[in-house]
Amino acid sequence: MTSTATETRSVVVERELPHPPGKIWRALTQPHLMEEWLMKNDFRPVVGHRFNLRGDWGGVLDCEVLVVEPNKALSYTWNFAHDDAAFNLTSVVTFTLTPTGKGTLLRMEQAGFRPDQPQAFGGAKHGWQKFFENLEQVLARAAGGGVHGGFPGWRVELTNGSGGSGRFGQSSGSRRCRRRSA
Amino acid sequence: MTSTATETRSVVVERELPHPPGKIWRALTQPHLMEEWLMKNDFRPVVGHRFNLRGDWGGVLDCEVLVVEPNKALSYTWNFAHDDAAFNLTSVVTFTLTPTGKGTLLRMEQAGFRPDQPQAFGGAKHGWQKFFENLEQVLARAAGGGVHGGFPGWRVELTNGSGGSGRFGQSSGSRRCRRRSA
Repeated sequence: MTSTATETRSVVVERELPHPPGKIWRALTQPHLMEEWLMKNDFRPVVGHRFNLRGDWGGVLDCEVLVVEPNKALSYTWNFAHDDAAFNLTSVVTFTLTPTGKGTLLRMEQAGFRPDQPQAFGGAKHGWQKFFENLEQVLARAAGGGVHGGFPGWRVELTNGSGGSGRFGQSSGSRRCRRRSA
Repeated sequence: MTSTATETRSVVVERELPHPPGKIWRALTQPHLMEEWLMKNDFRPVVGHRFNLRGDWGGVLDCEVLVVEPNKALSYTWNFAHDDAAFNLTSVVTFTLTPTGKGTLLRMEQAGFRPDQPQAFGGAKHGWQKFFENLEQVLARAAGGGVHGGFPGWRVELTNGSGGSGRFGQSSGSRRCRRRSA
């Protein structure tokens, strides 16, 4: 009996945020808010939905939703096709939200960096720090009631108590699927 | 006699900067400074050199140097390969530096957006505003003598008077080549 194992590395960022899980969930799953802290996108919180994350400089990531557990867990592929193996990335991003006494522990893991991809791995480590900083600013602006140009009313959406379900036809309860093999 | 014409659009950003052309040229052509305001890269100011611009999130642009006229003009391709035509970008970025009484007029044109690429075009308009803001901060830090972590000595490089030539074996004088047809 033989088995093969491919060693990959993950980037993990954990941060306790002074906000309830439902509010963070909305920032993670509403496209106009995701655009604020992550990238332009056509995300929908529906397992199997394929979407793109688009950088302002023309780059595009190919993604597919894998897990949607409202207020608890969100996972999607984060793939980048390139002829150069060093840049050809097949990875999975998973967010988990855990309530704490002071707010929510948000954990992000991006898994799938091969040993021959030190640049992509290093870039992701740096990039996620920035994304988290952006996310904290989005959440803080919502808490402080600051005016945010371009998306009138977003503060209300971010702070309402609906738990984020229903907005995109997403029923309550969790949905999971396995990542398809390549 | 027939001819075909493909209509494309350009993003143009012009800004007068209170710095001499040589200082701006160095920020445009030294990889560690380019990383500060643009992206990680393996750029060299040599016509024909192929390089990548790498985003922290795993995305990569494929580029080739087309024009190097120290302190005057710099041009390179800015290409992104993607199966979806809306995202598959073939473009050329050209910087021109014109001395003014107060400093330098820096002009950037990114040409090649097809009519079916409104998202890429819109993203680039937004992106270049941010890149220019970053560039101004890099130049201002150099002028003010602010400490910059991670690149000891970069301030000296940015403000020395060498005109940027020689550092990468780039001789004086201009070099041009035509963009190759696809």
